[in-house]
Amino acid sequence: MAEDKQQTFGTEHSTQGAYVTGEEFSRDTNYIEDRVVADVAAARSAPQEEPSKIGDPRMRGLTADAEAWPAGPGRYRLVAARACPWAHRTIIIRRLLGLEDVISLGTPGPVHDVRSWTFDLDEGAKDPMLGTERLQENYFARFPDYPRGITVPALVDAPSGGVVTNNYPQLTFDLSTQWKDHHRQGAPNLIPDELVEDMLPVIRRVFTEVNNGVYRAGFAGSQRAYEEAYDRLFETLDWLEERLGSRRYLMGENITEADVRLFTTLVRFDAVYHGHFKCNRNKLAEMPNLWGYARDLFQTPGFGDTVDFDQIKAHYYEVHEDINPTQIVPKGPELESWLSEHGRERLGGSPFADGATAPGPVAQDERPPGANPLHR
Amino acid sequence: MAEDKQQTFGTEHSTQGAYVTGEEFSRDTNYIEDRVVADVAAARSAPQEEPSKIGDPRMRGLTADAEAWPAGPGRYRLVAARACPWAHRTIIIRRLLGLEDVISLGTPGPVHDVRSWTFDLDEGAKDPMLGTERLQENYFARFPDYPRGITVPALVDAPSGGVVTNNYPQLTFDLSTQWKDHHRQGAPNLIPDELVEDMLPVIRRVFTEVNNGVYRAGFAGSQRAYEEAYDRLFETLDWLEERLGSRRYLMGENITEADVRLFTTLVRFDAVYHGHFKCNRNKLAEMPNLWGYARDLFQTPGFGDTVDFDQIKAHYYEVHEDINPTQIVPKGPELESWLSEHGRERLGGSPFADGATAPGPVAQDERPPGANPLHR
Repeated sequence: MAEDKQQTFGTEHSTQGAYVTGEEFSRDTNYIEDRVVADVAAARSAPQEEPSKIGDPRMRGLTADAEAWPAGPGRYRLVAARACPWAHRTIIIRRLLGLEDVISLGTPGPVHDVRSWTFDLDEGAKDPMLGTERLQENYFARFPDYPRGITVPALVDAPSGGVVTNNYPQLTFDLSTQWKDHHRQGAPNLIPDELVEDMLPVIRRVFTEVNNGVYRAGFAGSQRAYEEAYDRLFETLDWLEERLGSRRYLMGENITEADVRLFTTLVRFDAVYHGHFKCNRNKLAEMPNLWGYARDLFQTPGFGDTVDFDQIKAHYYEVHEDINPTQIVPKGPELESWLSEHGRERLGGSPFADGATAPGPVAQDERPPGANPLHR
Repeated sequence: MAEDKQQTFGTEHSTQGAYVTGEEFSRDTNYIEDRVVADVAAARSAPQEEPSKIGDPRMRGLTADAEAWPAGPGRYRLVAARACPWAHRTIIIRRLLGLEDVISLGTPGPVHDVRSWTFDLDEGAKDPMLGTERLQENYFARFPDYPRGITVPALVDAPSGGVVTNNYPQLTFDLSTQWKDHHRQGAPNLIPDELVEDMLPVIRRVFTEVNNGVYRAGFAGSQRAYEEAYDRLFETLDWLEERLGSRRYLMGENITEADVRLFTTLVRFDAVYHGHFKCNRNKLAEMPNLWGYARDLFQTPGFGDTVDFDQIKAHYYEVHEDINPTQIVPKGPELESWLSEHGRERLGGSPFADGATAPGPVAQDERPPGANPLHR
């Protein structure tokens, strides 16, 4: 057993905002905490806020040294790699809220180098709006000596080319609360007032134990740290399995932000985390409630139609050479079962509350190019 | 994609009798082809035989340069690492035939170095009968300049300490055919005359596509070679899944040698090959007939009671540093489900034909020390 073997992960992982201290994987949670808000003056004059690892939809003001930017159409570009679960959240929320014509989307390819995400999938290997080859350039356009990880999602101010914020825990909340005037007709309320108090602890547990829990297992620096991470992860998956036995969605009858945050990890689970990160007590497909729930979401417009399994697999298996030095990408798992009947209607509820509707089809030029059983 | 990346595997794999030529993994099938037989004079005087990659129970004579040794109690020691699927065959057959008191068992530990298998689990790190620390010493006792892989299983002549044969394709057949006088009362006939013609093609396909197929996928030197290996493997698993939908065992109503040869790969599938070798279209547990069949065998005396999941996982995940440089060993999968009801009785048949019986319990000093849901 490699009981106490220590491992460090270099720039490759730090560009994703992650590093290892000692044996246990830790995530760098220092971000550019600027916010794009509905009312700049109000945000600036509100009391200073504390940063939050999971964000807070009730946040009115700014954290220390942060700036407020005005919400509005056409100005901002969301740079979000389809491979990355943290970026994937923003792609789903943008779709659910119908912000596609208001905030444009840039999509770096899945396989980055030590200088991080590049626009290698775009024509001429440049983002068509920003004109940059590397997202790093947009970080440097804002802060020439930017010292931290070049992460996605990043919301970029298109006129200046500079990154406004990469603070993903808050970013999706702000898309719901600060961009209301720009939501599509029928956009769901993903953060209902009456659920916020109950939702934030769920989101926190999902973040620390699941979203981040799979990384804690995969990047563990010793056998012991890995086994502890594995136990923590499956303890919470068991809790979710039970919770979802009586609720169609995490917070009850309709989809909320909490579901989006859980979905992005679940959709990667069998394809990547089960094998690559050794989260292998069982597959997602072997947990009936979670698997039904994940398929229910996958089959809901705004979720599955944003997924690119090829990019997801390529990212993890090719970028993490420390874990997969051959860089061979598994051909499995089979994906058709994502379309199988989930039977979750029996629990009542519906994806969207009365008055809200599903988003329309994905625009042709935003369709994920890689494997997806919905797109055949 | 690492499309055309070539990889070579060094001494580590060659000590297991395996190497990579170009991109595709090949197995070294040159062995010490001596045989232990019931009638030495008859074997020596029979016409010369051609070597066979899967062995042949009808073989009467010897291959070129091979010698015949007399079967008999007490003289030979079977050295068989519990981790290794090729060695595992011999452990199961020895149990089914009741040869435990006739041929003793030496069990190297799962984690070997470039000089291959060692007796590190034994007191004083020496095999208690042979007195050697490394199996290599026993190969050198026979051939001082032995040039090929130090592989298990190896049948050792205890008086001289030299390896008699490591030719596993033939070894298990010979345990059935040449050691008949020493089988226990009620030992099954694992090679019924009337089934041999049909069984050998099944054994051949299982060998090339499954037993060896998982290695072809796991040790592939390019993305393309891996994907071809994956397709070949699952094509044959699909064929087996269908075959086992109407037959309780591979050859019909009772267990034969063919089942033993398939079992040793299936029992490792979800624990090792699915993740480590990227054979991940689906788990074994997701193929209902194969999974029921594998559990049926697991729950039959002589099969599951020989399994050591800890040694199996440690071997692959710690020895193959080229594939798993962290050497972290997955904690999963959960093993309790190996004991779940398999329902295979509905197909008729029974493990052993009329007149044959199951072997008794494993001797206390031969119980696999590691994880096994049967031993709690």
